[in-house]
Amino acid sequence: MLINFLGSVWLQLTSSAEFAEVGCPSLRVRASVSSPQKLYSSKTTQVKSGEEVQIAVLGASGYTGAEIVRLLANHPQFHIKVMTADRKASEQFGSVFPHLITQDLPNLVAIKDADFSNVDAVFCCLPHGTTQEIIKGLPKQLKIVDLSADFRLRDINEYAEWYGHAHRAPELQQEAVYGLTEVLRDEIRNARLVANPGCYPTSIQLPLVPLIKAKLIKLSNIIIDAKSGVRRGAKEANLYTEIAEGIHAYGIKGHRHAPEIEQGLSEAAKSKVTISFTPNLICMKRGMQSTMFVEMAPGVTAGDLYRHLKSTYEGEEFVKLLHGSTVPHTRHVVGSNYCFMNVFEDRIPGRAIIISVIDNLVKGASGQAVQNLNLMMGLPENRGLQYQPLFP
Amino acid sequence: MLINFLGSVWLQLTSSAEFAEVGCPSLRVRASVSSPQKLYSSKTTQVKSGEEVQIAVLGASGYTGAEIVRLLANHPQFHIKVMTADRKASEQFGSVFPHLITQDLPNLVAIKDADFSNVDAVFCCLPHGTTQEIIKGLPKQLKIVDLSADFRLRDINEYAEWYGHAHRAPELQQEAVYGLTEVLRDEIRNARLVANPGCYPTSIQLPLVPLIKAKLIKLSNIIIDAKSGVRRGAKEANLYTEIAEGIHAYGIKGHRHAPEIEQGLSEAAKSKVTISFTPNLICMKRGMQSTMFVEMAPGVTAGDLYRHLKSTYEGEEFVKLLHGSTVPHTRHVVGSNYCFMNVFEDRIPGRAIIISVIDNLVKGASGQAVQNLNLMMGLPENRGLQYQPLFP
Amino acid sequence: MLINFLGSVWLQLTSSAEFAEVGCPSLRVRASVSSPQKLYSSKTTQVKSGEEVQIAVLGASGYTGAEIVRLLANHPQFHIKVMTADRKASEQFGSVFPHLITQDLPNLVAIKDADFSNVDAVFCCLPHGTTQEIIKGLPKQLKIVDLSADFRLRDINEYAEWYGHAHRAPELQQEAVYGLTEVLRDEIRNARLVANPGCYPTSIQLPLVPLIKAKLIKLSNIIIDAKSGVRRGAKEANLYTEIAEGIHAYGIKGHRHAPEIEQGLSEAAKSKVTISFTPNLICMKRGMQSTMFVEMAPGVTAGDLYRHLKSTYEGEEFVKLLHGSTVPHTRHVVGSNYCFMNVFEDRIPGRAIIISVIDNLVKGASGQAVQNLNLMMGLPENRGLQYQPLFP
Amino acid sequence: MLINFLGSVWLQLTSSAEFAEVGCPSLRVRASVSSPQKLYSSKTTQVKSGEEVQIAVLGASGYTGAEIVRLLANHPQFHIKVMTADRKASEQFGSVFPHLITQDLPNLVAIKDADFSNVDAVFCCLPHGTTQEIIKGLPKQLKIVDLSADFRLRDINEYAEWYGHAHRAPELQQEAVYGLTEVLRDEIRNARLVANPGCYPTSIQLPLVPLIKAKLIKLSNIIIDAKSGVRRGAKEANLYTEIAEGIHAYGIKGHRHAPEIEQGLSEAAKSKVTISFTPNLICMKRGMQSTMFVEMAPGVTAGDLYRHLKSTYEGEEFVKLLHGSTVPHTRHVVGSNYCFMNVFEDRIPGRAIIISVIDNLVKGASGQAVQNLNLMMGLPENRGLQYQPLFP
Repeated sequence: MLINFLGSVWLQLTSSAEFAEVGCPSLRVRASVSSPQKLYSSKTTQVKSGEEVQIAVLGASGYTGAEIVRLLANHPQFHIKVMTADRKASEQFGSVFPHLITQDLPNLVAIKDADFSNVDAVFCCLPHGTTQEIIKGLPKQLKIVDLSADFRLRDINEYAEWYGHAHRAPELQQEAVYGLTEVLRDEIRNARLVANPGCYPTSIQLPLVPLIKAKLIKLSNIIIDAKSGVRRGAKEANLYTEIAEGIHAYGIKGHRHAPEIEQGLSEAAKSKVTISFTPNLICMKRGMQSTMFVEMAPGVTAGDLYRHLKSTYEGEEFVKLLHGSTVPHTRHVVGSNYCFMNVFEDRIPGRAIIISVIDNLVKGASGQAVQNLNLMMGLPENRGLQYQPLFP
Repeated sequence: MLINFLGSVWLQLTSSAEFAEVGCPSLRVRASVSSPQKLYSSKTTQVKSGEEVQIAVLGASGYTGAEIVRLLANHPQFHIKVMTADRKASEQFGSVFPHLITQDLPNLVAIKDADFSNVDAVFCCLPHGTTQEIIKGLPKQLKIVDLSADFRLRDINEYAEWYGHAHRAPELQQEAVYGLTEVLRDEIRNARLVANPGCYPTSIQLPLVPLIKAKLIKLSNIIIDAKSGVRRGAKEANLYTEIAEGIHAYGIKGHRHAPEIEQGLSEAAKSKVTISFTPNLICMKRGMQSTMFVEMAPGVTAGDLYRHLKSTYEGEEFVKLLHGSTVPHTRHVVGSNYCFMNVFEDRIPGRAIIISVIDNLVKGASGQAVQNLNLMMGLPENRGLQYQPLFP
Repeated sequence: MLINFLGSVWLQLTSSAEFAEVGCPSLRVRASVSSPQKLYSSKTTQVKSGEEVQIAVLGASGYTGAEIVRLLANHPQFHIKVMTADRKASEQFGSVFPHLITQDLPNLVAIKDADFSNVDAVFCCLPHGTTQEIIKGLPKQLKIVDLSADFRLRDINEYAEWYGHAHRAPELQQEAVYGLTEVLRDEIRNARLVANPGCYPTSIQLPLVPLIKAKLIKLSNIIIDAKSGVRRGAKEANLYTEIAEGIHAYGIKGHRHAPEIEQGLSEAAKSKVTISFTPNLICMKRGMQSTMFVEMAPGVTAGDLYRHLKSTYEGEEFVKLLHGSTVPHTRHVVGSNYCFMNVFEDRIPGRAIIISVIDNLVKGASGQAVQNLNLMMGLPENRGLQYQPLFP
Repeated sequence: MLINFLGSVWLQLTSSAEFAEVGCPSLRVRASVSSPQKLYSSKTTQVKSGEEVQIAVLGASGYTGAEIVRLLANHPQFHIKVMTADRKASEQFGSVFPHLITQDLPNLVAIKDADFSNVDAVFCCLPHGTTQEIIKGLPKQLKIVDLSADFRLRDINEYAEWYGHAHRAPELQQEAVYGLTEVLRDEIRNARLVANPGCYPTSIQLPLVPLIKAKLIKLSNIIIDAKSGVRRGAKEANLYTEIAEGIHAYGIKGHRHAPEIEQGLSEAAKSKVTISFTPNLICMKRGMQSTMFVEMAPGVTAGDLYRHLKSTYEGEEFVKLLHGSTVPHTRHVVGSNYCFMNVFEDRIPGRAIIISVIDNLVKGASGQAVQNLNLMMGLPENRGLQYQPLFP
C-alpha cells in the first residue's frame, strides 16, 4: 500500500500543473516527493544501538513539550540536551511540571540563548505562526519534527487563507514531509523536516485514507462528528468550571483541521474531497473519538471495510482493529500511542459508521512525533512509546 | 401547526389499512386520534387556581422519581400524597435521596400497599415492562403520565420486536397519547394516559418534526450523532471509574429509541423514515446533545431551516432558538426544562447541521412529565418548571 | 441565642478600649452595634407584599453575579433594573451567560454609566479592593449587600495586613454588618451595608460559633481541613486540564479566609482563637465540605455537640442537622441555599469531627446575599431561595 | 534507619509476652522477625539478568490485576503465565480490559483449573477473606505478594474484630512480611509471602513512621484527613452519577485501614498509637492525598520534620520530598509509583501539616506489589515501574 501511495503521488506529480490550473490546490504535491534526486540522494540516518541522539525540545513549557519529556524518560537513546521556553527561561522544568521533577533535565532557556552545537534533532512544540521563522533559523543539519500546524498544508495559499497571513518559509514547507506515520512511513524515514499531523486529522485519516484509496467508500457526504479532550489554551472557555460535565460543538464550519483532513483524503482520492466536520469539546483531559458516517461504494459491505482496514494495519504496532462489535472507548487508549478503530453497519442500508479513538496528546501529537523521529533516526519505531494505556 | 398535524394524522387514518398492508407499521395511528367521539366527548379537566391535585409517584426511588419530587417542591398545586418503591418500602424518601430531606413527604410504600383512593394523578417511573401491568391495574379515573417506554411505540408488533415480549396492555397502548408537549399539546390536554417521550427522541423530534412537516429537509440520510449523560443503572459499565474522562458509542444499530424517533419522523413525513442513530455515553451526570446532519430540500438554505424553527417555537417557553452562531452547550440547560437549539451551514453544500441540547432528566424525562400533567389538569404549562439552568 | 450573641457583643463593647490595648484587634466591634441610638432609631425597611424592589447588580459578569440572576428569576419582588460589567459594557447578559438567555434583563453597562435613581438595593459582586471605593461613591439611601471581602474584617489593620493596602473606606467598614444570616439575623435586618461572608467562613462558623459560645469545645487545636470547588479566576491553574481528576491543598498558612474565620470564632469565644486551616481545591464546579476536628470540653460528648447544634438550628430553613450517622455530601446541597452538617465521634477519645457542606456559590455567596437582602427589606428570608438541590 | 527499625523490632520481641499481657495486641510482632534462624537460613532468591520469572495473577479481572498487567507489559523478566478470574473463566483478558488487548496473554481460567507447575511467583488480587484459603492451598515454593488485607494485621484477634470472622490461615499470617517497601526492604527481600499494604496506610506511614521513630512528633492527636479516588466495587454508591462533582467522608470511625495504620505507627513508636482517621471519597479515578496534622515534639520545627524526611528518603527512587512550599498534587503522581510529600508549618504554633500523595492503584497497590516482588526475586526494585506520571 505504501508503495502504491507513493506511486500515486508520483503520478499526480506529472500532471500537477493541470491540477493547479483547474483550481484544485490541495492536490499539489510536495517538492520533496517530486524531486527524485532527493529521494535517492538523501542519506538515510542510521543511529547505532546504544548511540545517543541529542535532542532539543523547543517550547517545552506546553503540554506537548511535557509529553515529549514523559515519553523520552523511557527512551534508551534520545537524550534531552536543550529545552527552551521563553517565558519560563532559567526556570527548572520540574517547577513548571512537577509531575516530571524526578527527571534529570537541563534548565529552560530562551530560544535565542539555546546552543544547538551538540544537538542532533529537534521537537518543535511552538505555537502556530512563530514556528516558521524559528525553524528557518535553525542549523540545517538538524532533524526536525514540528508539532505545530505550520508545515501541514502543502498549498501555501490555503495556509494563508486559514491562518490569516502569508507563509513565512515556503521553501521549508516544500521540503516538509507530512508525518502520518503508518501512511507515509517511507517518506518520513528520509525526511529532514516532518510536519507532525494534527490530532483530528490523525484519527480521521488513519481509517479513511485506506478506504478511499481502495475505493470502498464514496467521496461525497463524508460526515465526521469528532469529540476531543480539552487543550491548554489559558482562556476563560477552557476553565474547569466552563468545561466540566458537558459537551459543546465548536468551529463547525471553520476548524483549521478541516483543510488538513481534506488534503489527505483528496490525495488518497486523487480528486477534491469536501467533508462535513463537526468537532466537539468534551470534559476530558485526554482522548479523542472520531465518528465517521460514510456511504459505501455499490456492493460494498461494512464487513468489507473492516477487512480492508484489518489487513492494511496487520502488523502495525499502534493501529488496531477491535474484534466483533467491540466499540472503541477513548479511555482505553489514554496515555498510549494506540489508535483503536472499528466499523459498524448503519441502520440506513449502504452506509457504515467508523469509529476511531486516540489519545490526542500521544498519537495525536507527541507520541507520533517520537514515532516519526525514531524512523528518521533509523531506530525501531516504538522506542519510548511502550507505555500501555492508563485505565481506569 | 398542531391543527395541521392532527389533520394529517386524520388523513392517514382513512388509509391506514393500506399502509398496514404494505408493511409500514410505524404509520398506524392511535385510536385516540382516530375516534372523533373521544375528542369531543372527553371532558377536559380544569383544576381551579389554588386547588390541590393529589399525586402518586410510582417507582420513586429512581432518578426520574427524585426529579419529579424536586420539581414539585416548587409546584403550588401538585401535592405528593403517595410514593412507592418496592425495594425501599417503609423507608423515608430522604434516606434514599438525602438531597431532598427538607421535603415533607409520605414514606415509601410497596406498590401493592399504595392507597389511591384520594389520588388524582400518577407519575409512573417504573422500569420498562412491568409498567404495563401496573398501569392496567390502576383505578380508571387517574390521570397518568408514564415515564417508561411501555406506551411510546404505537405498533405493538414493533414493541414486541424491540422489547422481546408481547405487549401486555394493548388496549391501554391505544389510548395512550405520545407526550411530546410542544408538538402534540392539544391531544395531551385531553389525554388520560400520556406516554412521556424518551430523552433522545425529545431532543431529536423537537427540531426535526417541524422541518420534515414543512418539507425543508430530505428524508433520506438523516444522520444523528447524540451524546448523553449517564443513566443510573447499577451495573459495572456505569461506575465512576468506567465513565469518567471519556466517551464511547453504544447501541449503534440497536438503541430502543431509534424506532421511537422513526415513528415520530415518519408520522411527520407521512412516509417511512429510517435514520442513522449513534448514541454516545459521556462523562456527565445530566445533559444531552443531539447533532443532526441533514440534506436540505433543493433550494433550501440553513437560514430557511433556522427561520422555520424560530417561527415554529416563537412564544414557546421551553424551546429556544439561539441567536447567530451561538452553539448550544449541554451545560447551559442543566437543571431546567429548556431545549436550546441552533442551525449551522455545513461545509458540504446543500447540507445543514442542527444541534439541540436538553437536560435528559428534565425536558428528557421528569420535567416534560410535569409539563404534560399541568396540561392534562388545565394548569399553566410551566408550573413547577421555573428552575433556571444551574451553571456552572 | 441571637439575643445572647448581641448581648455578648454589647458587653465587649463597654471594654473595647482595653481589648484594643492588649492587642486583640479581632475583638473590636462595629460601630453599628456600639451605637444604641442606631439600633433603636433605625427605621426597619418593610416592603409590602407585591411591591417591587428595584435591584442593581454590580459586577454582573462573574459567577456570583450570574447566580444572583438565577435566584432572582424566581423572586416575586426583586426586580433587576441595572446590571454593570465594565469589560462587557453594552453586551447583552445572555451573550455572556447563555444559560440565562431566557431572562428579560437590562443590558450590561459600565459602572460609571449606571443610573441608580430608581434603584433600591445593590448586590455588589466586584473584586476585592475596588469594591471599597465603588461603594463609597454610591447614593447613601441604597441598601447594599457586598459579596467581596472588603468589609468582612472589622480590624482595618488586619485588613491592611492580609490585603496589602490600607482600607479605603474605614467609615463604611464600621457601618458594615457581617452577614452570617443565622447568627446575626437581627443586626442584618437593620443594616444598610452587609458584608456577605466568605464561603469557607460560612461553612465553618455555622457549626463552630454555637459550639464555642456554649463552651462545648476547646479553643485550642481547632483543625479544619476544607475542600472547595473551583473558582472562576481565568488563570492557568484553574484550567480544566489542571483541575480535573485531582485534589490539592493551597494557601495552607495564608488563606485570606483564615482571619475572617478567626474573627468570628474569637468573638464567639470572647478571646483570641487561632485555627489550623487547610483549604483544598477539588475537581468540582460547586460545593464545599469543611471537616472540623475539635477537642471537646471535659465531660462533653459528640452527642452533646449534635444536640446543641440541632436545637440551635431547629426551625431554620437552610441549616439542617442530618440524622444518625448520615454523612453530609457536597452533591446533596448543590444548587441550593442549604447547609447540611453532622457530628461524629472520633477514634481518639475526647475528640469529635464535624462535617458541614454548602454550595459555595449559593449559601457561600449569592444565596446568602439574597437571604440577607430579603431580611433587610423586611421580606420572608427564603424568597427566591427555594431551589432544591440538583442531584445527580 | 532500616537497620534501626529491625533492631527495634528485635528489642520488642524479647518482651513481646509482656506487651501481649498488657493488652497491646498491635505490638505483637511477627514470627518471621522473631525467628533468627529464618532470617539467616532463608536462601535469598537471585534471578539472573535476562532470566524469566513465570508469574501467575490470581483475580486478574479486577483493577489491581489489570494494573499488574499494565506494569508487567514493560517488565523485561516477569512473564505472565497464568491468569485466573473465576467469573470470567475462559474469556480473553482483552475482552475484560480492552485497553490491554495489545498484550499477548494467557486466557483467564478458574483458579481451580490453574496450573502452577511452571510458576515462580504469584500476585494475589483476590477479595479479602477468600484470599487466606486460596493462598493456603498454593504450592509452598511460590513467592507470593498478596494485595488483599488478609495478612496485613499481625494480631489475628484484631483481624477477627475488623473482618468479622476468625483468621483462616494464622500460620501463614505469622510468616507474612508487611510490604511497605522503603520501610521494611530487608525483610521483604527475604520473604516468601508479602502482605502488600493498603493505599491509605502506604501514603500515611511513609511520612509518619520515620518521624515517629525519630521522636520528632507527638503520638497523641495525630489527625489524618485522607482523600481517595473511587474503587471499583459494583455498587450504587460508586456509580458515576453518585460520585462525579463531589466529595464525601465515609467510614469515619470504622475504616479497616485504621488498625493497619495504627499497627505501623505503634511499632515505630513502641507504644500504642490511636489516630483520628477520616477518609473521603472524591470524584477521581486514581489518586490519594493524605493530610496529616501533627503536634511536634518540644523545640522541633516543621523544617526539622522536612529535613529528617528528606534525609530518610535521600536516594529512594519512588519517595520524593518536594522543594520549598510546593504542594503535592494527586494529579502529579497518577500512573506512577511515586509518593510525593512535603511538610508545612501550621498557623497554630507547635503544629505541622504533612501532605503526601500517591496513585492508589500503583504505589498504593499494584506498583508496590511489583516493587516487592522485584526485591523478593533479587531484581532491581524499579523494574517495570518506570512509567512516568500521566499529566494532564
